[in-house]
Amino acid sequence: MRAYDIIYKKRNGRKLSKEEISFMVDGYNYGKIADYQMSAFLMAVYFQSLDDEETFALTETMAKSGEILDLIFLDGPTADKHSTGGVGDGTSLLIAPILAACDVYVPMMSGRALGHTGGTLDKLEAVPGFNVNLDKEKFIEVLKKNKFAMIGQTKEVAPADKKMYALRDVTATVESIPLICSSIMSKKIAEGAKNILLDVKTGNAAFMQKYEDAKLLAQKMVQAGKMFGRNMCAVITDMDEPLGNAAGNSLEVIQTLEVLKNKIENDFSDLSFDLSAYILVQTGISENFEAARNKVKEKISSGQALEKFIKMIELQNGNTKVVDDYSVFGKAQNIYKITAHENGYLKYVNTRNIGIAACLLGAGRLKTEDKVDPVSGIIFNKKSGDKVCKNDVLFELHYNKADIKSVVEILNTSYIISGGKQEKIKFIKEIID
Amino acid sequence: MRAYDIIYKKRNGRKLSKEEISFMVDGYNYGKIADYQMSAFLMAVYFQSLDDEETFALTETMAKSGEILDLIFLDGPTADKHSTGGVGDGTSLLIAPILAACDVYVPMMSGRALGHTGGTLDKLEAVPGFNVNLDKEKFIEVLKKNKFAMIGQTKEVAPADKKMYALRDVTATVESIPLICSSIMSKKIAEGAKNILLDVKTGNAAFMQKYEDAKLLAQKMVQAGKMFGRNMCAVITDMDEPLGNAAGNSLEVIQTLEVLKNKIENDFSDLSFDLSAYILVQTGISENFEAARNKVKEKISSGQALEKFIKMIELQNGNTKVVDDYSVFGKAQNIYKITAHENGYLKYVNTRNIGIAACLLGAGRLKTEDKVDPVSGIIFNKKSGDKVCKNDVLFELHYNKADIKSVVEILNTSYIISGGKQEKIKFIKEIID
Repeated sequence: MRAYDIIYKKRNGRKLSKEEISFMVDGYNYGKIADYQMSAFLMAVYFQSLDDEETFALTETMAKSGEILDLIFLDGPTADKHSTGGVGDGTSLLIAPILAACDVYVPMMSGRALGHTGGTLDKLEAVPGFNVNLDKEKFIEVLKKNKFAMIGQTKEVAPADKKMYALRDVTATVESIPLICSSIMSKKIAEGAKNILLDVKTGNAAFMQKYEDAKLLAQKMVQAGKMFGRNMCAVITDMDEPLGNAAGNSLEVIQTLEVLKNKIENDFSDLSFDLSAYILVQTGISENFEAARNKVKEKISSGQALEKFIKMIELQNGNTKVVDDYSVFGKAQNIYKITAHENGYLKYVNTRNIGIAACLLGAGRLKTEDKVDPVSGIIFNKKSGDKVCKNDVLFELHYNKADIKSVVEILNTSYIISGGKQEKIKFIKEIID
Repeated sequence: MRAYDIIYKKRNGRKLSKEEISFMVDGYNYGKIADYQMSAFLMAVYFQSLDDEETFALTETMAKSGEILDLIFLDGPTADKHSTGGVGDGTSLLIAPILAACDVYVPMMSGRALGHTGGTLDKLEAVPGFNVNLDKEKFIEVLKKNKFAMIGQTKEVAPADKKMYALRDVTATVESIPLICSSIMSKKIAEGAKNILLDVKTGNAAFMQKYEDAKLLAQKMVQAGKMFGRNMCAVITDMDEPLGNAAGNSLEVIQTLEVLKNKIENDFSDLSFDLSAYILVQTGISENFEAARNKVKEKISSGQALEKFIKMIELQNGNTKVVDDYSVFGKAQNIYKITAHENGYLKYVNTRNIGIAACLLGAGRLKTEDKVDPVSGIIFNKKSGDKVCKNDVLFELHYNKADIKSVVEILNTSYIISGGKQEKIKFIKEIID
């Protein structure tokens, strides 16, 4: 077998065998196939795609390139949740402690902010001292003690995917449904949870902007997970407006704490509760969605979910004082307020630009090597469909160092205020299982 | 400017600016852009193609990546000829001395055998001592003395193309008309001849098997050459049967000498004379094709072309004794004869396999690093349309070391003998200028 022939075959639109896919992926992972051959192969896949069998073969090879965590020793159901990413999309922070409080083990490995989207690890690190880099042994120890742990991927998880993703990222070969599917699913399979819920975002600030792409990706991932014996559920959710009232690391953790303390409810808590409920049904803990939803609410009102969250901060070396005193997070030196220029109804029209604005304020990364400022970000005082009066504050921009004029210019392209009443956005669009 | 954005833009089918193309090519040539980005870019070009302006920009950037030879100091017209390659296609060996005898300077830089096709340099090296590796100064000295010189590309010629071609060769990105066009034309432009004749092969043993592909490539190359102020002419010729009566290095040089000595005429000499005549018209030496064709014949019958050829061998350190004593080339240890199994008319049906068979006998290279055996190859006693009788010798296989059984098996798939009369092949199919 030669890498050249496999590239040539895929370039010409022919189907690859499982052996050919393994030859490419393992060869690349072990340094026997050059990166220039792999990048040409990935570009050929971008154009010629992979069918289901090829996608599963790729997923399997990448999952098996490292260790597949076996969580059979845990005395309860295991679940994981993955989002394709968006603006203000911090639901993992809320879902994980809720599930743990419902006796579901949540071994969660997440990613970092990139481009206009946020990342769970950066949000967690807004808590002073919080350690997302636990090794496998420590991860399992925390998981056993508190039923959930939230870390970055250990080195054991799908190393071939890690290497290939880094290459895709610099060769414009990220936007391919079979490659995205196998990248996400190889990690989720390797991370070992039996129940997997996928939150596939669609809309302007989503990775998959078109609904049909999001749906296809969701279907492929559900299929792939089932091939590996996992209980799968995908939820297609809206990313045409920011989720919740904050985009920024400490700002989103504070919002999470406010929900856990049962002090606020908003579209962020709504979606998080819904997703948690779907997982409770999936794991068999609850009989139906209604029962599950009630159980979730009960774990919030009783404070049990908050307790789990505090315990996780403690077990992962974070400063638990943040829970009662938000000033421990630190504060941005500057706050700039954008106000409404007229009366009317608000509508977000470019949420991707909101993500970019948050990034430029310091909350995210335009390049992998950029440093994140934990306290900067944006507060959304109004959501799509809200009535606004002239001079109402729409956005609060928190920042330490930023070209505030250009950030404001970008934000001003992201919304409109119009006379006609706007519909409230319904976040969940479709369930695929 | 970033390589990523240029790959992304081309991947999405958008037109690149001249600056973007230069940025990629120069960046790669100077080691500032990684090979994995260039290979992804080349695969994107394979799928999305380049329009004329992009192709010319690529050609120009690659031509200018090295030195563009200025031959203005020569006291006569300059011409070069390039073939896209085939089986038995040694016309350069004949055309160059004919043109030189007609007072046309021919600064010819050629390539080596690869795959099923032969290469001028390997044929020249069949002459003991012959040196194809002259540096620029020596090349010009020979050119001045004898009006022609035949060498490999000097290091000054289009180094960016050299580097990119090597990458294309291992990433399945060779078969792209704009990439082929710019690769060939960047070298031809850099080599400095004012008049360029392109022999674009089509048919089973051609690189461009489909006629429409060959025609499109010919048109693009003619256009590109004109953009650089060159007199261009492309001839689309048949490669459905081997050209002439030999495929193999010394065997083809011997055939050339026989023609130069005015001892034989065949389809190889016919095509060579025609192509020489087109160039004589192109350079303005002859007024029309008929006059040019007569002039060519006169240079053969007078022995002047042979004289030029002998002088070149001498100037490039070859042993001129080969001219009168073919045993100086050496001889293959074994000759295997394939005979006709019935009476009828011969037709070649898979000339690519004949090229592969010649290669397996030792005459060519399956891989770049393979060594070539100068004396091995195939003699074709019969051509398409010839009447054959049972037991007539069709092929003579000359070889030193080969798996003769499998070579014969391959050759047996390359021709048929049928009862019905077969048409003789007309080699020249179309002229594009």
